[in-house]
Amino acid sequence: MTTATDASPSVDLAAIGAAAREAAHGLAAASTDVKNGALAAMADGLRSHADEILSANALDVQAAERTGTSASLLDRLTLTPARLADIAGAVETVIDLPDPVGAMDDVRRLPNGMEVGRRRVPLGVLAVIFEARPNVTVDISALCLKAGNAVILRGGREALRGNTAMAAVIGQAAERAGAPRDSIQLITDPDRALLRDLLRDRAHVDVVVPRGGAGLIEFVAANATVPVIETGWGVCHTFVDDPADLAMAERIVVNAKTRRPSICNALDTLLVHRGVAAEFVPAVARALTERGVEIHAGGDAARALDGVVDTAPLGPEDLDTEWLSLRMSLCLVDDLDAALAHIRAHGNGHSEAIVTNSHVNARRFTDDVDAAAVYVNASTQFTDGGEFGLGAEVGISTQKLHARGPMGLREMTTYKWVVTGDGHIRPR
Amino acid sequence: MTTATDASPSVDLAAIGAAAREAAHGLAAASTDVKNGALAAMADGLRSHADEILSANALDVQAAERTGTSASLLDRLTLTPARLADIAGAVETVIDLPDPVGAMDDVRRLPNGMEVGRRRVPLGVLAVIFEARPNVTVDISALCLKAGNAVILRGGREALRGNTAMAAVIGQAAERAGAPRDSIQLITDPDRALLRDLLRDRAHVDVVVPRGGAGLIEFVAANATVPVIETGWGVCHTFVDDPADLAMAERIVVNAKTRRPSICNALDTLLVHRGVAAEFVPAVARALTERGVEIHAGGDAARALDGVVDTAPLGPEDLDTEWLSLRMSLCLVDDLDAALAHIRAHGNGHSEAIVTNSHVNARRFTDDVDAAAVYVNASTQFTDGGEFGLGAEVGISTQKLHARGPMGLREMTTYKWVVTGDGHIRPR
Repeated sequence: MTTATDASPSVDLAAIGAAAREAAHGLAAASTDVKNGALAAMADGLRSHADEILSANALDVQAAERTGTSASLLDRLTLTPARLADIAGAVETVIDLPDPVGAMDDVRRLPNGMEVGRRRVPLGVLAVIFEARPNVTVDISALCLKAGNAVILRGGREALRGNTAMAAVIGQAAERAGAPRDSIQLITDPDRALLRDLLRDRAHVDVVVPRGGAGLIEFVAANATVPVIETGWGVCHTFVDDPADLAMAERIVVNAKTRRPSICNALDTLLVHRGVAAEFVPAVARALTERGVEIHAGGDAARALDGVVDTAPLGPEDLDTEWLSLRMSLCLVDDLDAALAHIRAHGNGHSEAIVTNSHVNARRFTDDVDAAAVYVNASTQFTDGGEFGLGAEVGISTQKLHARGPMGLREMTTYKWVVTGDGHIRPR
Repeated sequence: MTTATDASPSVDLAAIGAAAREAAHGLAAASTDVKNGALAAMADGLRSHADEILSANALDVQAAERTGTSASLLDRLTLTPARLADIAGAVETVIDLPDPVGAMDDVRRLPNGMEVGRRRVPLGVLAVIFEARPNVTVDISALCLKAGNAVILRGGREALRGNTAMAAVIGQAAERAGAPRDSIQLITDPDRALLRDLLRDRAHVDVVVPRGGAGLIEFVAANATVPVIETGWGVCHTFVDDPADLAMAERIVVNAKTRRPSICNALDTLLVHRGVAAEFVPAVARALTERGVEIHAGGDAARALDGVVDTAPLGPEDLDTEWLSLRMSLCLVDDLDAALAHIRAHGNGHSEAIVTNSHVNARRFTDDVDAAAVYVNASTQFTDGGEFGLGAEVGISTQKLHARGPMGLREMTTYKWVVTGDGHIRPR
């Protein structure tokens, strides 16, 4: 076990950081044409090097199989020709997104004649810490490059061979197309002490983005002195009010839970107003169970399902659990106030929904709930950069600084004030 | 010496945090009228309790005198009837600022008929860590309250009695006027271990704002797991180019250095193009020296002043020093590229200026310099929320996340996505 101060002498973190800083300086000045050309070259490179990328990934998958990795994790890790083609295609969609860099906002001439405004500029150097899913390497690199940021990637150990192959291909392709060298760097050493040093490299890294589960995010937040944008996990609620259109509520709940159960905006806990529970709970439970959902319920929620469907008991941690699977919690509540109190106690500010016919309650819910995305009569599965019209996204921010919810290209930039005078001095 | 885990049993940090969270929930829902009423009551309270506040501050000043505090620090610490009246007046100016909370940005109806938009909401609970200046207690509290945030203040030991008196007065006044109890709380225990616990209280604190010198900011950045907005210090440069209007350059340099030398946007290092050095350096040095400025210079910069004015040698740390006083560094450079390289090496991204008659160089400078505020032909002393038209400010952010440069009311808010549908589910 190495310590933070003598971590991995084989990796020269300062050199990586300095190279990224240099690349960021070049990328900040790169035109949209140069950046789009680099993206096109990256997509081409992924296609023309498909064989070597797929072979490298196959070695990752074989190694994971030997260690008894679960089938769902294996599936996430596996690249196929079709998936790799999708990844290359996703890079090309970034070409079509408008370049946020260079826009001037809030420009005005002050009473003294001086002109001030905020110019949108890249953040600089991003360090992105992620887990197994290999598409992240390419997705994030493409978005960083388009926003003018250099990126230092640090992926999971499970996907190391595939990530290394893809990072080499896209980095070289971008450079040949005119992007600065080292715009995209991958740290291949999985050492946690090295990661800790990266998280404290304030001289070279402007922002850290952890993209993964709650454990990864907690590690990054606890160890980083570089500013962090936390993304990615959420205990999401849907509250079915009285009065509500119960057929609509059933469609929304089934979609929020089952469309893709493994993503962070999927429903975790269903809250149902007692006034509609007798009618609604058995119906929605049947629809969910038919789709393979396991409902965790206790007390009167469990009793409402007696003889309707099988339920699992509600464990002590269940109401604070992000399920990421076809399991969910169910609670009955007395009224909107109780639902709001439940969400305040158990939500972590990701995506929360109400299904209601009451205008007053819809307004109270959107006012009161403190979350990245608050829904009325719609499925929480919409929390996504593409769905909200931002284009591709780096992740879903669950913190309040800088960006909240989906982080698109604009959220990967900051601004600087540009002030132009004719010799203006400040009198008082 | 206590440790982080058993810090100051006399202070119940969890109770303070929970009370702040509760107050923030109430403040988020408070109308602009209620918030403005609380601000008016705070200003009135400061005026009607002036005697007890001034007496408490006098005890702080006496204690500081006994420990041999410098005259300039004593001056910053001292409240007078006129200064207290100014502080009360500053609270009233916040009443006139528009309330940023509740505005909806980027609202649009998606092709599927669902309406999405970003609603501006308060950040929640801010912890503000500051040093001696007692006006900060009131200024920050007023801005936090107007933006709908609860605040936990932790001021310097030197100003404890005055801060305690002011926080009690404004907190009670705000509450009597209808603001939630505990909207403004002050931690009076100066224990650093307690501060460290506060910086890690992610359950109750949304954002930490350190407002002080580089040492305080480093301590907060190194210890916080709560997101931090770093404010307040800067090594600021002014580059006098060739060609430049040298009379204008002299006015700008003198203003940037001497208008208020103790603030973070004051000039620290003057960079002069060698092409104008023979004419400009002696003239500006005389003007600065007449105003009491001590110039630190080495090599040819020192030789250019031989027999003109006395200079101090350029120490090894001087080019990375924020002087906050009537001292400054002087360097000659070959050209714009050398000036840009110097600023990249020694600036920390606060305020940087060029004085030039070259349009090309002005454009290159504003493009290349990565700082919160970049100036052409104007004094860096303008970096200020009031001057930029933001109204009063919490501080000057030198980081890239969330806000850069002056942080006004809008920068003390975040947004949430509000999505309204008619039963929308996500098809794919």
